[in-house]
Amino acid sequence: MLKKKNSYVVAIVGATGVVGQEIIEILAERGFPISELVPLASERSEGERIGYNNKSIIVRKLTKDAFKSVDIAFFSAGAASSKEFAAAAVKAGAVVIDTSSAFRREPLVPLVVPEVNAAASSKHSGIIATPDCSAIALAVALNPIHDAARIKRIVVTTFQSVSGTGKKAIDELAGQTVALLNFQDIKTSVYPHQIAFNCLPHVDAFLENGSTEEETNIVNELRKVLGDDSIGVTATTVRVPVFRCHAAAVNLEMEKKLSANEVRALLSAAAGILVYDDPKKNLYPTAIDVSGKDEIYVGRIREDESVPNGINLWLVADNLRKGAALNAVQIAENLIQ
Amino acid sequence: MLKKKNSYVVAIVGATGVVGQEIIEILAERGFPISELVPLASERSEGERIGYNNKSIIVRKLTKDAFKSVDIAFFSAGAASSKEFAAAAVKAGAVVIDTSSAFRREPLVPLVVPEVNAAASSKHSGIIATPDCSAIALAVALNPIHDAARIKRIVVTTFQSVSGTGKKAIDELAGQTVALLNFQDIKTSVYPHQIAFNCLPHVDAFLENGSTEEETNIVNELRKVLGDDSIGVTATTVRVPVFRCHAAAVNLEMEKKLSANEVRALLSAAAGILVYDDPKKNLYPTAIDVSGKDEIYVGRIREDESVPNGINLWLVADNLRKGAALNAVQIAENLIQ
Repeated sequence: MLKKKNSYVVAIVGATGVVGQEIIEILAERGFPISELVPLASERSEGERIGYNNKSIIVRKLTKDAFKSVDIAFFSAGAASSKEFAAAAVKAGAVVIDTSSAFRREPLVPLVVPEVNAAASSKHSGIIATPDCSAIALAVALNPIHDAARIKRIVVTTFQSVSGTGKKAIDELAGQTVALLNFQDIKTSVYPHQIAFNCLPHVDAFLENGSTEEETNIVNELRKVLGDDSIGVTATTVRVPVFRCHAAAVNLEMEKKLSANEVRALLSAAAGILVYDDPKKNLYPTAIDVSGKDEIYVGRIREDESVPNGINLWLVADNLRKGAALNAVQIAENLIQ
Repeated sequence: MLKKKNSYVVAIVGATGVVGQEIIEILAERGFPISELVPLASERSEGERIGYNNKSIIVRKLTKDAFKSVDIAFFSAGAASSKEFAAAAVKAGAVVIDTSSAFRREPLVPLVVPEVNAAASSKHSGIIATPDCSAIALAVALNPIHDAARIKRIVVTTFQSVSGTGKKAIDELAGQTVALLNFQDIKTSVYPHQIAFNCLPHVDAFLENGSTEEETNIVNELRKVLGDDSIGVTATTVRVPVFRCHAAAVNLEMEKKLSANEVRALLSAAAGILVYDDPKKNLYPTAIDVSGKDEIYVGRIREDESVPNGINLWLVADNLRKGAALNAVQIAENLIQ
C-alpha cells in the first residue's frame, strides 16, 4: 500500500515513448504532487532529456535497481518491459500502474477505469493495470447504460489511430503519405501493408482462432472492468490512417428498452463522457476534434430496430490521454487521496 | 423490352463523372457490342472529349431529346438527374440502367445484383436500378450464406472511400492532405469536417430518425436484393480517408450454425467473390489491393461466440466497379444475352 506523503517520487518507464510523454505532460498539467520525477527508458534513450514543468530531466537507463525510493512507477514501455521490471519496482516498495497488457488478465491485478470501478484499485498487491485503450473508452461510455438497462450483447468495430502503435507508426503514416503524394514508392515496416489512404483490419498479432489480440483484449477487459462476464462481446479492430484518437461504432442489445433520448440523458449525466450528438447540425465526434480532450465523446445515438432493445452509438476518445496516460494518472490520484 | 441486335446504341448519362468514366472503361474492356456510344453530361461538360476504345468522342448536352435511337442508357449522374431524364429515355425506347438512388425503392423497378437476383431484371418496365455500392458488396457476399443458413440479423459498419462522393471529394482529400503536411490551413467544402487523417460517421444526408440515407439504403436495398424482408439489418456508415474501395465489418446471426471453414468454402464456390483470408500470413483484403478488381474480397472470417450462430467477416469491394459501373454493365450483358 502507498504511504501518504506530501509529495511522491514518481518513475516513468518508457519516458520517451508516446504514452510516457503524455503521462509526464498530464502529471504536470494536473499538478500531481511530485518530489522527484524519474524518467526511465531503454539504453537507446539513456542520457536524452525530457521536459517536465519547465525543467529538463536526464533519462536514466531502466534496470531492476532503478526503483530505489520510488513511490509510484508508471509503466508504458510495452508488455515485455513490464513483465521484466514491474516485480523489481514492487519489491523496491513502489506501486506500479501499468498501461501495458502484461498483467491485465491476472485475477489479483485490478484492472481499473476510475469512472467505472475505482474501488477495485484498493485491492492491489503492488500492481494496478489500466485496460486497453479501446476497452477504456467502451467501459466509460457503456457503464451507465449497463447500470440502467443491463447490456446483453455488444458488437463493436473500432477505427484505431496509428499513435496506438507508437512513434514509428506515426512516422510511417506521415512518410507513406508524403511518398504517395509525390508518386514515389512507399516503405512498410511497422505495418505489413500500406497504412496511408488504407484501412487494415489488423490491430496487434493474430491468435489461433483468427481474432487479433486487440479484439480479444476488448472482449475480456470490457467484461472485467464492467464486472460482468455474462455480457456477450464481439469486436473487429481496424487500423485507420488517422494520427490520434480511436473511434468505435457500437451496437448494443439491452435487457430493458432505452430510447435514444434516455441514453443521451444517462450519458450526459455520467462522469468522463461528453455527449456530442446533433446530426442535423452535422455534430458528431471525430478524431480531429477529440484530440487532446479528456472525455469520451459520444454521438450518433440511435435506436436499432433490428432487435427488441437495440442502440447504436459512435464514440471517439483520445487513445493517448484517456485511453492510456490520463487513466493511469487518475488511478494514481485516487491512490494518494 | 430490348430488341436483340448485333450491336447497340449506348448512352452514358454523367459520362464525365467517376462512375460514368468507369462504365465507359468497363464497356470497352469487356467488349460490349456498341454501334454508337453517346456520352451525355450537363451543360458544363458539353463539348469535352472522352476516350473510348482509342477513339475520342465529344460529350453532348443531356436533354430530354438526347435519347433518340438509344437502346441502352446508363444513368450515373445522381438521383436528381435520373428523376428528370430517365422517363424521356424510356419513352424514346431505351432501357435505363440507373446507378442512382432515384428508383431503387419503387416496387416495379427491379433492383439487381446479377450474382444474386439476375432473373429480377426480366420484369422491368423500362428502368432497372443498381443498388447502393455498399448494398451490392454485402448482397454478393451474404447471399450464399443466407441460402445455406438463413441470416436472421446483420450488424454492419462501413469504411467508405471518398470516390463514393465523386471527383470533388477525391480532390478534397488530396488537397487537405497536402495542406496539412505543409502546416497550412485546410478547406472543407464537400464534407462538413476535415476528411484527411479523420473518419466521419456520416455518409449522405441525415434523416429525421438520426440515421443517414446511406444507412437506410443499405437496410432496405439489402433486403430487397436478397428478397427477404424478415432479415434484421442495422448499419453505421463511415467515410474514411481512402480514395477508392469500400470496406465493411459485418456481424451475422444465422438460424443454422456454420463454422468459419464452412463459410469460407461457401464463399469460395460462389460467383463474384474472392476469399482472401489467411491472417497468419497477414492476408486480408484492403482498399489498396482491391482497387480495380471485379470481385468482392472477403477475409477475417471468424466465428462469433457472443451468439449461438454468429459469424464475423470483413469485405472490401471496388465501389466504382462492382459497387456501381461493373454491376450496371453486367445487367446490360444479361439483357442482350
